[in-house]
Amino acid sequence: MTPAENAQLALLLEVAGTPKPGNVDRARDLSDLRFEHFLAGTVGAGPGLRAAERGAPVGEAFERAVEGMSQQEGGNTQFGALLLLVPLVRAAADGDLSPEGVERVVEKTTVEDAANFFRAFDHAEVYVDDPPEDAGDLDVRRGSDAVPAVEERGVTLYDVLALGDQSDDVAAEWTNQFERTFWAADRLAELAGSVPASALGARVYLELLARQPDTLVAKQHGAKTAESVRVRAQEALEGGPEVVEAFADSLVADGINPGTTADLTAAGLFVALARGEVSV
Amino acid sequence: MTPAENAQLALLLEVAGTPKPGNVDRARDLSDLRFEHFLAGTVGAGPGLRAAERGAPVGEAFERAVEGMSQQEGGNTQFGALLLLVPLVRAAADGDLSPEGVERVVEKTTVEDAANFFRAFDHAEVYVDDPPEDAGDLDVRRGSDAVPAVEERGVTLYDVLALGDQSDDVAAEWTNQFERTFWAADRLAELAGSVPASALGARVYLELLARQPDTLVAKQHGAKTAESVRVRAQEALEGGPEVVEAFADSLVADGINPGTTADLTAAGLFVALARGEVSV
Repeated sequence: MTPAENAQLALLLEVAGTPKPGNVDRARDLSDLRFEHFLAGTVGAGPGLRAAERGAPVGEAFERAVEGMSQQEGGNTQFGALLLLVPLVRAAADGDLSPEGVERVVEKTTVEDAANFFRAFDHAEVYVDDPPEDAGDLDVRRGSDAVPAVEERGVTLYDVLALGDQSDDVAAEWTNQFERTFWAADRLAELAGSVPASALGARVYLELLARQPDTLVAKQHGAKTAESVRVRAQEALEGGPEVVEAFADSLVADGINPGTTADLTAAGLFVALARGEVSV
Repeated sequence: MTPAENAQLALLLEVAGTPKPGNVDRARDLSDLRFEHFLAGTVGAGPGLRAAERGAPVGEAFERAVEGMSQQEGGNTQFGALLLLVPLVRAAADGDLSPEGVERVVEKTTVEDAANFFRAFDHAEVYVDDPPEDAGDLDVRRGSDAVPAVEERGVTLYDVLALGDQSDDVAAEWTNQFERTFWAADRLAELAGSVPASALGARVYLELLARQPDTLVAKQHGAKTAESVRVRAQEALEGGPEVVEAFADSLVADGINPGTTADLTAAGLFVALARGEVSV
């Protein structure tokens, strides 16, 4: 498969993996966000992912992927995952899918990439916090209205994400050589023999969740809740399938959605698929 | 969405719809054929479907779709569905997604289309019966080895499928204006308000199965079994969810797979999506 195809397959395997506590999966829908929204989001993201594969600028490919993803009624399904996948697809297409390879891709982003990143927010309702104090008028909630400020300040997409890397673990991947993505890919490769492909993603999702508090949960429910979810993920890992199921049910009931961890899982699946360490 | 994207979404919605007795669905895997094989098959079919959309000859686009579909370890996932979707995508791209529009597409197929159809059998293990007596050396099991015979006899792809339309309901769609596909699409449109999108396909699958014996079941287990499955589908429709679930479990246990009915469901979903009668 091509890098763009592996990215679509990663998105599909991510959402199919169950149980993935707090997220939509093969067995669970949320009230307004259902499995089929993720299927449609994946199909719609295709042209943007293929643009990244062909060498389009990262911001342009990302905006196109988000626009395509948004042709469904569930809202934001895979914004964060695409923000990881687009540079990873580009690195794979460049023949260097490694921490250094993807770092080169993100460090080369331009002011125009940043402008297109802001434009992408016009297409999807993305949950974001107040911007950090030093961000000033670079508030992603303004979408394309912030483009003049982006251009005036001359910030690249890398710069923009560096502003958010303390509070958002997708942004943190950009400025930290996609460390958790490659960690997830390595874990997937280790587990690949012992767990069926469909269960791999769910397992590594839970491991990621147990290692670090989810930043979407922190933004939506506070740092304390995010840490408690992390601890419960650790207990679920130790407790086995029944504890995991109960944990999954309780997160859905409480409306707690560790979406960033799902994004990282999709990115890890992509790397493992592209390296041929996981196959379907 | 473009016609090719709607075709991919139709394939995903088809496999996600549950319960779809006897087939892989969101809740059930078969022993060697699992949900993720259909996900990968859908992604892999993309280039062929997009070729059909751009106006490539039907046989060429179909072969490419099947080759892409086969990049997974589950074997034949969507051969029959693609044989319906490729001409439907072409008709939609031509701006006439109607029984007459798709009839024009299939009637225009050539000897070269037939040759590429036979080549497609090289990529996937497709379950087929002995060829009809008048088929002679046009045995699809020979794959590309049959191409010289195709060329010598000067048969078009339409001619080849007409040879099989008594025993294979995918072939019968080709020679009968895609009647069951459009029937399914109309039913999907009628039900679209009352049933969530994810359940629509499963419902119409069961209705199709109750109306006509599945030809894949007939080939694999005989006409009697196929008729008994039809009757039980009718009883399941009347009996409600629990009867449907029990029916689903029993078909999986008996290794009975009404795959042709699933193909028709995917085709119906495509038409309903492309017409905007079903949305996600």
